[in-house]
Amino acid sequence: MEHELNFWVAGGDLRQAQLARLLAEDGHTVHLYALEEQSLPDLSPQAGLEGIERADCVVFPLPVSAGGGLLNAPLSPEEHPLAQVLDRLSPSQALFGGRVDAASAALARERGLELRDYFAREELAVANAVPTAEGAVQLAMEHLPITIHSARVLVLGYGRVGRVTAQRFQALGARVTAAARKYEQLAWAAAMGLGTERLEELAGWLCGYDLIINTIPAQVLGRRELEDVRSDCLILDLASKPGGVDLNAAADLGRTVIWALSLPGKAAPVTAGAAIQTAIYHMLQELGY
Amino acid sequence: MEHELNFWVAGGDLRQAQLARLLAEDGHTVHLYALEEQSLPDLSPQAGLEGIERADCVVFPLPVSAGGGLLNAPLSPEEHPLAQVLDRLSPSQALFGGRVDAASAALARERGLELRDYFAREELAVANAVPTAEGAVQLAMEHLPITIHSARVLVLGYGRVGRVTAQRFQALGARVTAAARKYEQLAWAAAMGLGTERLEELAGWLCGYDLIINTIPAQVLGRRELEDVRSDCLILDLASKPGGVDLNAAADLGRTVIWALSLPGKAAPVTAGAAIQTAIYHMLQELGY
Amino acid sequence: MEHELNFWVAGGDLRQAQLARLLAEDGHTVHLYALEEQSLPDLSPQAGLEGIERADCVVFPLPVSAGGGLLNAPLSPEEHPLAQVLDRLSPSQALFGGRVDAASAALARERGLELRDYFAREELAVANAVPTAEGAVQLAMEHLPITIHSARVLVLGYGRVGRVTAQRFQALGARVTAAARKYEQLAWAAAMGLGTERLEELAGWLCGYDLIINTIPAQVLGRRELEDVRSDCLILDLASKPGGVDLNAAADLGRTVIWALSLPGKAAPVTAGAAIQTAIYHMLQELGY
Amino acid sequence: MEHELNFWVAGGDLRQAQLARLLAEDGHTVHLYALEEQSLPDLSPQAGLEGIERADCVVFPLPVSAGGGLLNAPLSPEEHPLAQVLDRLSPSQALFGGRVDAASAALARERGLELRDYFAREELAVANAVPTAEGAVQLAMEHLPITIHSARVLVLGYGRVGRVTAQRFQALGARVTAAARKYEQLAWAAAMGLGTERLEELAGWLCGYDLIINTIPAQVLGRRELEDVRSDCLILDLASKPGGVDLNAAADLGRTVIWALSLPGKAAPVTAGAAIQTAIYHMLQELGY
Repeated sequence: MEHELNFWVAGGDLRQAQLARLLAEDGHTVHLYALEEQSLPDLSPQAGLEGIERADCVVFPLPVSAGGGLLNAPLSPEEHPLAQVLDRLSPSQALFGGRVDAASAALARERGLELRDYFAREELAVANAVPTAEGAVQLAMEHLPITIHSARVLVLGYGRVGRVTAQRFQALGARVTAAARKYEQLAWAAAMGLGTERLEELAGWLCGYDLIINTIPAQVLGRRELEDVRSDCLILDLASKPGGVDLNAAADLGRTVIWALSLPGKAAPVTAGAAIQTAIYHMLQELGY
Repeated sequence: MEHELNFWVAGGDLRQAQLARLLAEDGHTVHLYALEEQSLPDLSPQAGLEGIERADCVVFPLPVSAGGGLLNAPLSPEEHPLAQVLDRLSPSQALFGGRVDAASAALARERGLELRDYFAREELAVANAVPTAEGAVQLAMEHLPITIHSARVLVLGYGRVGRVTAQRFQALGARVTAAARKYEQLAWAAAMGLGTERLEELAGWLCGYDLIINTIPAQVLGRRELEDVRSDCLILDLASKPGGVDLNAAADLGRTVIWALSLPGKAAPVTAGAAIQTAIYHMLQELGY
Repeated sequence: MEHELNFWVAGGDLRQAQLARLLAEDGHTVHLYALEEQSLPDLSPQAGLEGIERADCVVFPLPVSAGGGLLNAPLSPEEHPLAQVLDRLSPSQALFGGRVDAASAALARERGLELRDYFAREELAVANAVPTAEGAVQLAMEHLPITIHSARVLVLGYGRVGRVTAQRFQALGARVTAAARKYEQLAWAAAMGLGTERLEELAGWLCGYDLIINTIPAQVLGRRELEDVRSDCLILDLASKPGGVDLNAAADLGRTVIWALSLPGKAAPVTAGAAIQTAIYHMLQELGY
Repeated sequence: MEHELNFWVAGGDLRQAQLARLLAEDGHTVHLYALEEQSLPDLSPQAGLEGIERADCVVFPLPVSAGGGLLNAPLSPEEHPLAQVLDRLSPSQALFGGRVDAASAALARERGLELRDYFAREELAVANAVPTAEGAVQLAMEHLPITIHSARVLVLGYGRVGRVTAQRFQALGARVTAAARKYEQLAWAAAMGLGTERLEELAGWLCGYDLIINTIPAQVLGRRELEDVRSDCLILDLASKPGGVDLNAAADLGRTVIWALSLPGKAAPVTAGAAIQTAIYHMLQELGY
């Protein structure tokens, strides 16, 4: 950003509060809306939507909507219909939201507005892989009676989250194997010093692990695979819906599964807010700001 | 160990239970005492002290005593005077305990017995540095709203715990500085890629850190130093008594301090139990078993 | 490979010799051709092309051709026209070559044959990034009077070679910055703990580096950038033609540039041969062998 | 150093030249002697010993003596008797040398002078472990046809050089085992993620390694051990005299051994010179300068 802008940050959790703080630190004018429970002393008091029509940029939360047409605003004691905010905006303003759902996109479109999705930015997804991986480390430390050091860890999937997660556990001294489908991914895992397994041939090789971390949003650990998992093995599922574990089979077999979603906002909201800021700056730059 | 021995494991927590399990896995005969709440299906039932006089080796917990002449036995519903156990033992048996206090040592000596301290073994202290460091990582992850990655971390002291702790945070992508007194230690820290600071000259350089981890059992963070620490900085004190932080000054100034003691047994009891086993094997070997 | 095959390895350098050895170790029948100067005691003696028509698979070298229609055969005292070999082959045989040039492909096509290119396999390119990175480390160590530890290193480009190379120098304690064009690549570099720079804005930031490693096959270090490079800085260009450095400007300015091509075969021929084997196995598998 | 001093740097190789350059950069007055072949444009011309009696500090090389009472001065075309220099010095000056031999120390003592040994400083020994380890990496890369990545490496001894060397090879993706005598050292190696072996029990376990690096100055690889080493294994001996390998047995058996001494000065003279500077500053500080 070459020059200072007028930002509104509307709704969201600690990440949005952090985003607002960082924007202000960069010299921008920042207004808050529907973030009442977050005290940010240096920012202008939150007084309704007055003036939002003069914003250069309005940032909606991640996700944008809490369902039922409401803005996602867990730090506000009140309900805020999204339409009420959109009604005051115009196409000349840059509007950003995270994981923009079809209903919210439609509400915007009806008003001639475009809600650009920062969560679809590849650089944000990569940046979020770091707090996700750290969240996985934290959960593993909390739930395993052994150290990560020397533990035998299997990471299912070698995309963004799989790569960073495998690297972190390896850095802590675990013996990490990555399982993936593509030869290219297996070559990357080998180049990074990991063991490798074919994802198609897991059953029969799972009993050796103390920790299994799934990053693939498709059922890769079915009943047959779960039968092969040791009873004292911890399974962390980091994949978004539908997840990668047959939870019924896991319950029948007494396997411990933690399905951990949205780790960045939980594990490191301040870092996650900074990553959103970076993505928004890139988008503004591409829009010519 | 070339041959199988008759072990008694008397008192203790999950570490002792794990130790018993590992000894049994190695083919030794293992008896439990004062560990009733720990079910270890493959081990002989716990029926008083009957037969302890035939033990080759008796392992007392870490620490040996709960005070007041009692065996430290948190997994037993009853009280067990240490003298009662010692009365049945003879000098030909190998007796081991952890952090043997003067009173317990005296109780043994009065009966012509020697209670050898496995906690004084250097290899156990080194091995325990790993779960200690991981416990510090876990606490930092739980209490900081930022990722360890990119965090600015200061480790005070570069002995066993300092070295391993600094290395782990560095491996997770933190920018780690070590502060120590000796030139040799600073040279080691530099050789491992850490930043270095003189321990004598901390004040004035502390405000840059997101996390400060102390490993020195002497007050290195007094009021003057704490005034220089940022209010959103987390201070972890891993040092045994008296710790390294002026807790009154920290409270006055509103600094967040977590004094974390005995992390190995809390963070990774199974790993900690295995480390005790290794130390005991070394001691037995040196005694000619 | 489920069953044993009849392989011919025709021409090439130490990598092909190593490939032949590994194929034989896996139980395949292996014939050598035009590799006379390489003694591989356990393999059948090299007696012309007799029997090549019974091969399941013929492996040509990397690159296939030495120009002028000749097989690339640096370990043979004689010249071997490629056509002479191809004349004896049939479409039912699996034929593989590395970096298949248009002329060689045409020679094959005229005979109804397809020369499949293992060098085009992504997994081979990834695997080759490792010996390339190590070759860069070796060159840097040989030519710099300082340690890699603490050296300030800039890696231009964050593709396959850039990633692995940056990671290796970082692992040795260098302070590594990656310069790339895409936000996504910069996010990856940051997630891996590297510094980041925009590739478009190098001039003015180059004087701080002890070592600059280019991996981009386009001129990124022109006269303007080279003027900003310190005279005691080493420049390693790992990019294939046309390379990334204006060599005339570098000569004028007295900058030290090493243009290092084909590092895998030079730095680690045995490892590079094993990587070719892996790629060929994958290709055979996909062909239904 | 609070204030600027008058330094003389007498004799030595590139390390001493670098030391002189760094001292000058810190604002000290620096005179060179017997370093004629090294051009250091900003330093005062070298004109004999005139004025050395006004030096605050005289730095002799590493080692001090070339034997026969001569100053070690490989960058000078002439011979320089050490006595000739010492004759002009007085006890009020700080005199430093590296690896001070008995004869040189006696020459000084006869004149009432003390030649303090910077090579005996622990922090210099630690700092030198880094270029030593890098020199070992370079040699291994130059002489092995495989990558360090995935290579099986055995490091004999886990002192200063062993630790840093093992860590560097591990960082490059080798599978590293450390062999040591003391349980404490083995515990350190394990805490750092290395495999461990008892030094006493090497024979029978050596055939699995691609590279063996010795750091122990006592014969640990005798005929019996060497018979167990694979013929394509590279042995690097980093230990000072008498080294750790039975060279006759190695020659008989056709094992490849490189005895690499004084790596810091060869691999990274500039870094090694900086390490000497640090040690000298510490010594001056302790002397009250």
